[in-house]
Amino acid sequence: MEISALKSFIDVAKEHPFPIQNLPYGIFSSKNNSNKRAGVAIGDFVLDLSLLEEHGLLDISHDGSIVFDQPHLNNFMAMGKSIWRQVRECITQLLSHDNPALRDNSPLRRVALVPMTEVTMHLPAKIGDYTDFYSSEYHASNVGAMIRGSGNALQPNWKHLPVAYHGRASSVVLSGEAIHRPCGQIRPKDEEAPFVSPSQALDFELEMAFFTGQGNLLGHPITIDEAEDKIFGLVLMNDWSARDIQKWEYVPLGPFLGKSFATSISPWIVTLDALEPFRISGPEQSPQPLKYLQQNKASSFDIQLQVDLATNKGAEMILCESNFKYLYWSMAQQLAHHTINGCNIQPGDLLGSGTVSGPSERSMGCLLEHSLKPIALPNGESRGYLQDGDRVTMRGWCQGDDYRVGFGELIGTVLPSLK
Amino acid sequence: MEISALKSFIDVAKEHPFPIQNLPYGIFSSKNNSNKRAGVAIGDFVLDLSLLEEHGLLDISHDGSIVFDQPHLNNFMAMGKSIWRQVRECITQLLSHDNPALRDNSPLRRVALVPMTEVTMHLPAKIGDYTDFYSSEYHASNVGAMIRGSGNALQPNWKHLPVAYHGRASSVVLSGEAIHRPCGQIRPKDEEAPFVSPSQALDFELEMAFFTGQGNLLGHPITIDEAEDKIFGLVLMNDWSARDIQKWEYVPLGPFLGKSFATSISPWIVTLDALEPFRISGPEQSPQPLKYLQQNKASSFDIQLQVDLATNKGAEMILCESNFKYLYWSMAQQLAHHTINGCNIQPGDLLGSGTVSGPSERSMGCLLEHSLKPIALPNGESRGYLQDGDRVTMRGWCQGDDYRVGFGELIGTVLPSLK
Repeated sequence: MEISALKSFIDVAKEHPFPIQNLPYGIFSSKNNSNKRAGVAIGDFVLDLSLLEEHGLLDISHDGSIVFDQPHLNNFMAMGKSIWRQVRECITQLLSHDNPALRDNSPLRRVALVPMTEVTMHLPAKIGDYTDFYSSEYHASNVGAMIRGSGNALQPNWKHLPVAYHGRASSVVLSGEAIHRPCGQIRPKDEEAPFVSPSQALDFELEMAFFTGQGNLLGHPITIDEAEDKIFGLVLMNDWSARDIQKWEYVPLGPFLGKSFATSISPWIVTLDALEPFRISGPEQSPQPLKYLQQNKASSFDIQLQVDLATNKGAEMILCESNFKYLYWSMAQQLAHHTINGCNIQPGDLLGSGTVSGPSERSMGCLLEHSLKPIALPNGESRGYLQDGDRVTMRGWCQGDDYRVGFGELIGTVLPSLK
Repeated sequence: MEISALKSFIDVAKEHPFPIQNLPYGIFSSKNNSNKRAGVAIGDFVLDLSLLEEHGLLDISHDGSIVFDQPHLNNFMAMGKSIWRQVRECITQLLSHDNPALRDNSPLRRVALVPMTEVTMHLPAKIGDYTDFYSSEYHASNVGAMIRGSGNALQPNWKHLPVAYHGRASSVVLSGEAIHRPCGQIRPKDEEAPFVSPSQALDFELEMAFFTGQGNLLGHPITIDEAEDKIFGLVLMNDWSARDIQKWEYVPLGPFLGKSFATSISPWIVTLDALEPFRISGPEQSPQPLKYLQQNKASSFDIQLQVDLATNKGAEMILCESNFKYLYWSMAQQLAHHTINGCNIQPGDLLGSGTVSGPSERSMGCLLEHSLKPIALPNGESRGYLQDGDRVTMRGWCQGDDYRVGFGELIGTVLPSLK
């Protein structure tokens, strides 16, 4: 059957992010059940997978351990691609308009399909390690040109390997959690002594990130051909950045407190299988990467991205329109590179793309790139960096013929510093 | 009672690392019981805390949850300083030469005191996040001088804040686990194209690291006065480093694959209470640090450190003799700085000191600092960097009047690359 012809007995509008073609995974609790458990988004409902599991409706082959009545998806992530596919197929069947099993079982339907308005979402995984890449050539060039001039924007290693740093896993938070402006050491001008201050240069970074499934043993790299099978799915990510803290601290060991105060992700993990119809080639890579980074197939995805700003003085504006396809390095290349030294990946690790900037000013994925020319808002305000009360909303979606595979929203509001 | 007068009914030689004054915590399994569980080292025995807990001999006030019959110490770490002190006091009593409770209970003694020769040690904690500092002025100056010349060795921020980077938690391994030489991209000379190779510049780094206990909520810094109460204890750490991989990759975001292939720690966590008699002042700090980093008491510890090398051609040599007291930034300062931006610390996080180099050539804590002049070994071999088969052993101890508080050994052997 054509993917676009799939239809659920749950009504889902054409522009809705969560049709039957999507089926993203998340962890939720609900008004009537405060247990955190796994669900799949379908239209304006969450399908409670822990209930389906309990009722024996998820016919997957495994050791009998509880997979979905868990406060995180790590156990499911660890089961691997073939089980993920079995479950996806099974859920697709259960939600199909022509399958009576769930559709006509009113008592089960009443409890297994929870209205989105009644759920609270939680972090989808216990994140072991979080790594952030730096994979947009546009972003790296824009930032590099500001620091070193346009003739010297990219560092010599940039086109040979996907540059990355280890990030802080403990401060990854979910969409909706407000972010306090961080304090830290800053030194505004080179001749001054540093002092502690709430950051005066608080920025967002439009990113996407993927969760890993089955990993590798320490010492045994994941090959580029295996890499995609180790990717469970993607979320939107806002890598909040305090540029003044970052600027003073980052030499020579990289970003630390300028990033580690908070990183926000969206609650629904969209699987690679849901994204498959939107696979496209990424940018041409020149020079040709080394063998362990060479791919034989299209390795990017056409995911439209948007960042909106709303201020507490009432301004609303689209700050950025970009696309995942602009990233120079693919997720498979990131994973192959991450493990070429034998570093072990575990189920539930989070790997960020880096700021997804595109070729135009409109597609710059953070305020730093605009910082030479603050953005004028429609009500007369302007933004160099974020102000207290600013709400940043990120959205992402793949546009099908008459459906969308969407990521939903990632929302973060800036609160004043706590001290 | 004088600390040095404490005596156990277990005989412990004067130079032994684990007298009753120490009581370090670890996770072990044994020939007769493959369950991982918590123990304390006393002489050549491990005291099985899970058994004492089961027999009601550890009289600590808590919610009744199982603390020591666990495969990691995180639950105990989370309980905080006053409980740690109760447990330490209780174990001290139980092991005292004049206390019959355990001494004269032969059946219990036979099972609760497991000979070291019958145990296998395991990682003591589920490490959430791992951070590595760069807190030896000698090390930072030696390395900086090699890169930027001696007039410019320290970066401008170095004396204002404890520089650090996020490390990889998943690849932290225990003493005894051999390390495969990692592969990665290297570019030996600036004009050449990079290629993949087993590292030709594999190094050790002599470090110490501390595990955290109760942490802080996101957004709420740990003050310098609270900081030491959040430190559970210390281990030895070998931060293996592939200098050629590191050199090519680290600009601009810091160390990544040059470090993440393995980091080794010693199995026994020595508590701050055990180290208290060896508290001394660290180096004078000038300029005076900002207020959030100012301490009113001696904040370092006199811990002697030693690195031995053994080659598979039979050479044995002390490569380094250093001391924890050489570190410019204290652990309390590291923790206060780490959280000044609100970053949340969790029980079981690992914070490394950075290479503990001292003022002399003899006290350089890694081979990189020697790299302009390879080390001559007694059998005619020499070492620029580590060769396959090299065994690196780190030791650390505090010397009391007639006892030692020791860390035991941290051993790592270099194996050939897997490809």
